[in-house]
Amino acid sequence: MILIGERINGMFRDIGRSIREGDKGPVQEWALKQVKAGADYLDLNVGPASENPVKAMEWLVDTVQEVTDCPLSLDSTNYDAIEAGLKKCKRPALINSVPAERPKLERVLPMAKTYGASVIGLAMDARGIPKNAENRLALAMEILAAAMEYDIPPDNIFIDPLILPVNVAQDHGPEVLETIRQVKLLSDPPPKTVVGLSNVSQKCVNRPLVDRTFMAMAMACGLEAAILNVCDDELIATIATARIILNKDIYCDSYVKVYKGRGV
Amino acid sequence: MILIGERINGMFRDIGRSIREGDKGPVQEWALKQVKAGADYLDLNVGPASENPVKAMEWLVDTVQEVTDCPLSLDSTNYDAIEAGLKKCKRPALINSVPAERPKLERVLPMAKTYGASVIGLAMDARGIPKNAENRLALAMEILAAAMEYDIPPDNIFIDPLILPVNVAQDHGPEVLETIRQVKLLSDPPPKTVVGLSNVSQKCVNRPLVDRTFMAMAMACGLEAAILNVCDDELIATIATARIILNKDIYCDSYVKVYKGRGV
Repeated sequence: MILIGERINGMFRDIGRSIREGDKGPVQEWALKQVKAGADYLDLNVGPASENPVKAMEWLVDTVQEVTDCPLSLDSTNYDAIEAGLKKCKRPALINSVPAERPKLERVLPMAKTYGASVIGLAMDARGIPKNAENRLALAMEILAAAMEYDIPPDNIFIDPLILPVNVAQDHGPEVLETIRQVKLLSDPPPKTVVGLSNVSQKCVNRPLVDRTFMAMAMACGLEAAILNVCDDELIATIATARIILNKDIYCDSYVKVYKGRGV
Repeated sequence: MILIGERINGMFRDIGRSIREGDKGPVQEWALKQVKAGADYLDLNVGPASENPVKAMEWLVDTVQEVTDCPLSLDSTNYDAIEAGLKKCKRPALINSVPAERPKLERVLPMAKTYGASVIGLAMDARGIPKNAENRLALAMEILAAAMEYDIPPDNIFIDPLILPVNVAQDHGPEVLETIRQVKLLSDPPPKTVVGLSNVSQKCVNRPLVDRTFMAMAMACGLEAAILNVCDDELIATIATARIILNKDIYCDSYVKVYKGRGV
């Protein structure tokens, strides 16, 4: 399971302030904390309020790379900011994200090729998020086909089926699980799948319960990556357990501790 | 989700003693407690030590039916005990269980027809439990074919793929999940699927964590029933949440409470 730490995001008050004031402290603390908790990538999102997203992304990349060489996920709808970040990344990064829209794919995929980055491709287009699995898969296929044109291997593409909050779009849950399952059939090697986990529980009660239950279910369907709160111990214990059940890690009585400790 | 309460089993010390001494108290207390917790069936198992399993099963059925009309799951490898229990059941029961062995099917299926009972069919035969999903499915198909001969509709059959403890037979986990998924393709209407949940965590640490994680994963694959500890609040909360994600119950902020309260 590829764990992408969600916490360095300008939407969180401490990170937003950190970016505005150029205060490295909170960003670097969260970077180290998430790496220690086992993050495989750190997501960097300058947040919606940033006046200069290009500069802010550059600063985030530099600030984080001062304290860790954990690979980065550059999270923005501003592709100039992503490109500026990619230029600074010391290790192959993840571009988060691009929808199945031709002009955006044509902007993002060449960057991915140039910088050896992987790409999160969203199962949506200008018309929005499809209601069913079939149409999500059609959009995933468009992204894969475009990636092939740019000579990017399918396993460098992470398809995000886009889970919506269960309290407002409940009918999407089974469709997203089905999409995760069927994406594997689109190519050989198949693309990876990823979710933005906390979306499923937005404005729900019991958010951690909803998150970890959905996570186990998505893993049963083949999910390989998630953007999530790597510091949620119960969530990580659930992931460790699902990996044991899927026979991806070897069982021992301390398997949860072993899984949590792998980042140290 | 069909919840089958596991607790009235002679393997538990209080129930074993209760059966030996003819003390109705613990059996009736556990019957009521499990019904209150939302059990759809109560599993009755006289345990391995019973000297007269036929009499013990009759006593259990009578004792439980004195306090509740919750349907019963008669759990024994002694088919005379099951038949004696079926004769006393006021409501259609569940026969737990029969493997894919012709003589046993020929003993059990006519009883199921006569008493209008459903049957748990185990994906094993005299050679044991197959290693992979394909062979489990072949055995499930044998059970279904036999049921058809006796004019028992497929949806009265619950196929149990037989999950083994994850600490000793880890490679079975993915095969069981795949079996649950594919059993649905064997007939129309399809059979139901069921697991004996606590098997997955036998002699593991974190048993409740392993149980509830596997449960969420199995539900993502289409599981409809489980024999389990209905009094495990976190497990029931996980089931309620998985049902919300699968769009089987309507979300409201008190959905866990609503699900727990449905038995009251």
